[in-house]
Amino acid sequence: MALVFERVVTEGLGDLSYLIGDDSAGTAAVIDPQADVDVYLQLARRHKVAITHILQTHVHEDFLSGANELAARVGNATLCSSAEDAAPYGYAHEALRDGDCLAFGSTVLTARHTPGHTPEHMAFLVAEEGREQAPYAVFTGGSLLINAAGRTDLLGPDRAQALTAAQYRTLHDFYLKLDDGVIIHPTHAHGSPCGAAIGDRLSSTIGYERRFNPHLQCRSEEQFRRFALDGLPPKPSYYPRLKETNTVGPAVRHGLPVAPPLPAEEFARRMEEGGAVVVDTRHMLAFGGGHVKGALNIGMAAQLPIWAGWMLDPAQPLLLVVESDGALDEVLRLFLRTGFTRFAGYLVGGMTAWDNAGHDVVATAQVTAAQVHDRPGDFTLVDVRAPHEWASGHLPGARHVYLPELPARAGELPRGKPVVVYCDSGYRASIGTSVLQRAGVAEVANMPGSMQAWKRAGYPLEGQPAG
Amino acid sequence: MALVFERVVTEGLGDLSYLIGDDSAGTAAVIDPQADVDVYLQLARRHKVAITHILQTHVHEDFLSGANELAARVGNATLCSSAEDAAPYGYAHEALRDGDCLAFGSTVLTARHTPGHTPEHMAFLVAEEGREQAPYAVFTGGSLLINAAGRTDLLGPDRAQALTAAQYRTLHDFYLKLDDGVIIHPTHAHGSPCGAAIGDRLSSTIGYERRFNPHLQCRSEEQFRRFALDGLPPKPSYYPRLKETNTVGPAVRHGLPVAPPLPAEEFARRMEEGGAVVVDTRHMLAFGGGHVKGALNIGMAAQLPIWAGWMLDPAQPLLLVVESDGALDEVLRLFLRTGFTRFAGYLVGGMTAWDNAGHDVVATAQVTAAQVHDRPGDFTLVDVRAPHEWASGHLPGARHVYLPELPARAGELPRGKPVVVYCDSGYRASIGTSVLQRAGVAEVANMPGSMQAWKRAGYPLEGQPAG
Repeated sequence: MALVFERVVTEGLGDLSYLIGDDSAGTAAVIDPQADVDVYLQLARRHKVAITHILQTHVHEDFLSGANELAARVGNATLCSSAEDAAPYGYAHEALRDGDCLAFGSTVLTARHTPGHTPEHMAFLVAEEGREQAPYAVFTGGSLLINAAGRTDLLGPDRAQALTAAQYRTLHDFYLKLDDGVIIHPTHAHGSPCGAAIGDRLSSTIGYERRFNPHLQCRSEEQFRRFALDGLPPKPSYYPRLKETNTVGPAVRHGLPVAPPLPAEEFARRMEEGGAVVVDTRHMLAFGGGHVKGALNIGMAAQLPIWAGWMLDPAQPLLLVVESDGALDEVLRLFLRTGFTRFAGYLVGGMTAWDNAGHDVVATAQVTAAQVHDRPGDFTLVDVRAPHEWASGHLPGARHVYLPELPARAGELPRGKPVVVYCDSGYRASIGTSVLQRAGVAEVANMPGSMQAWKRAGYPLEGQPAG
Repeated sequence: MALVFERVVTEGLGDLSYLIGDDSAGTAAVIDPQADVDVYLQLARRHKVAITHILQTHVHEDFLSGANELAARVGNATLCSSAEDAAPYGYAHEALRDGDCLAFGSTVLTARHTPGHTPEHMAFLVAEEGREQAPYAVFTGGSLLINAAGRTDLLGPDRAQALTAAQYRTLHDFYLKLDDGVIIHPTHAHGSPCGAAIGDRLSSTIGYERRFNPHLQCRSEEQFRRFALDGLPPKPSYYPRLKETNTVGPAVRHGLPVAPPLPAEEFARRMEEGGAVVVDTRHMLAFGGGHVKGALNIGMAAQLPIWAGWMLDPAQPLLLVVESDGALDEVLRLFLRTGFTRFAGYLVGGMTAWDNAGHDVVATAQVTAAQVHDRPGDFTLVDVRAPHEWASGHLPGARHVYLPELPARAGELPRGKPVVVYCDSGYRASIGTSVLQRAGVAEVANMPGSMQAWKRAGYPLEGQPAG
């Protein structure tokens, strides 16, 4: 009998999902699958196990659940969802109760109701057969995280107080009573907006978190409440949409969304028809060198799903420009992760075909940190980072407009000087420059390297907290 | 700053290797790389880090080290080897001393001399910058393992006593003084012959092992000595060869070994020339259906490297038959792992081409557990499993010849009845049947499913330990 254990890291979203089972029994469970489910099927086949159960720790808001898609693709797996304090689900499932056990060969999972991040939240203790009283690990979903705990404000201010109190009890009455040697396998990890300052380790232990996790240092519920609800990152605008979709149960697609191939002439015609938005997924420098007029630049990178979520309406069809036609599947996979499935098509042959067809391209200027530093006062500097990043220090004379607010607030920017948009690396800034170009701002430049390059050069910051 | 952490599982050999680093600093280390190093290069590229250091916990005996190959393929990485009680190395390296620290962004590794499995053995503590006194994990190499400890008898009986005493001190004076919440990342894992009864979890913690690891339950050095040196699996015959190769430093190949393509006529001609051995890497049932006369059947599976190691001489060129030509690279990768790099060629087009060229094939009968059970006394039953497997119970009337001894002992088998070879699954048994066919034994059959099928059917066992 041998354990099967695989951790799937979905970078950008900062989520982890898992395959756990036993290749002698030939069975396994997937925990918190992402929407692009091929990876779980491939892992199951490599390990020669049947995925018999699909478990969700909670109703996710930060990604499109792959549970229903995976159940359909497997064909005979049981989809399990928490029945403790749960809103009614819109899909067929087996109800999980606190204390329910599932065995996969010699590995035993026990569901534990651990509310706080959400009301219905379930953790899964992992034990060896015969040692059920001494679990060696726990899948913590969105409850106890690395250096953090799942945020409790996502269901709105009305419910935040009760959920925060529940999270405090979950941490103290459940997690802190486990042995120090129990390994923590969270779903939400570094980079996830489902918690503040989540650490970058992929797993931890009760002992290490007991000692260092700031959420576990709070000695009273009141202290915890203040700490837990303070300094949270902005709640992504797409969270309520995904919460609703995941509660109802996402449509089964049997694969990636479809983006029909559009030769340059057709792509141009489809643009003229209106109703679709052009998203150019190339690197910011390629976008800067030349792009289709009106395109939004959301680069093909791990964080694409988050920024598509913030900046785009999933009801509006997308027209895609990709770095190379071979990258299309990867781009579709990234969009799918936050529920984007409507594509009017992609530009066949990419920008080369567009150029050869004789269509116009628009450039975006790129300015370096040194150029901005050496010409103080020459630019209107726009910082599009999140409020807590802005509060940790920014470029002298910059103004702050968080990127998701930029489309509505483009008109506020003073005219007369070229606008330079920056963020931490240039990725979000390039989205911002494309937003401003679409809004008709004449002179706009991106700042590749952004704050990282600024700091590396040792240039001064403004607005840094004291101490 | 974000941690990069990847665990590479080399199934069959039961070894784990690791990439750990920081994608903000852009640097990483690889720990105990296997010989097929592409996976580390791919992981480093995916995470956008430079492999700056290649660390080895000890001089390995169970696999061909990939450290030198990886150093050459990276181009500018530093290869670090323990200088504590180490035999002289035959390759350029940086000497590691107990207490040496290496930082990769905010991740700090500290080398700790932990002799026992080998004299020079190093573990690597892992800590977050600023918390060096509270490591959160430790790469344990071949010292503290999951549910086990690295065996101490590999350098021969002369050194076993001193190494066992050293291992006892390593476990008690180093590991048991760490916090319960420290995560253990071993190199030798489930299935590795470098320890007995290694557990199938991929990581563990000091706390869980303190409680359940039988090696940590021994309360005196004397008790530990008896426990540690008892019940060890047979020491693979290829271990001394790999120890020597890895001490000198394996030749850098810049990729997989070469197996020239041989059309059927050339393959047959090369066979007639002599000096080469035909290894058929197909599944036992395909081999049974028809194979080249004289072929040894070592199936393309995770355990191929171990059985190639036991059954073949790396100085003798191999002639390969593969399931499909597309599987050649995977087969070469498996052979490389225990140091097989001499290939006379492979049969282009596989057995289909052989058939079409009009060459003879030989079949091997396959008998089921039910057939053996229903015809008691009709067969000479040969159990080719390891001694400790035989001792846990075997088929009634069977005789035991451990597979590696079968070539020399084929003549001992009584004539007159068909010989049925079995193991646990049929994989080793099929190697055994091919050995006997090569030795000229007339009637030989394999038993697919072997002990697993026998037990599943509820048939009686003989020689089971009492209780």
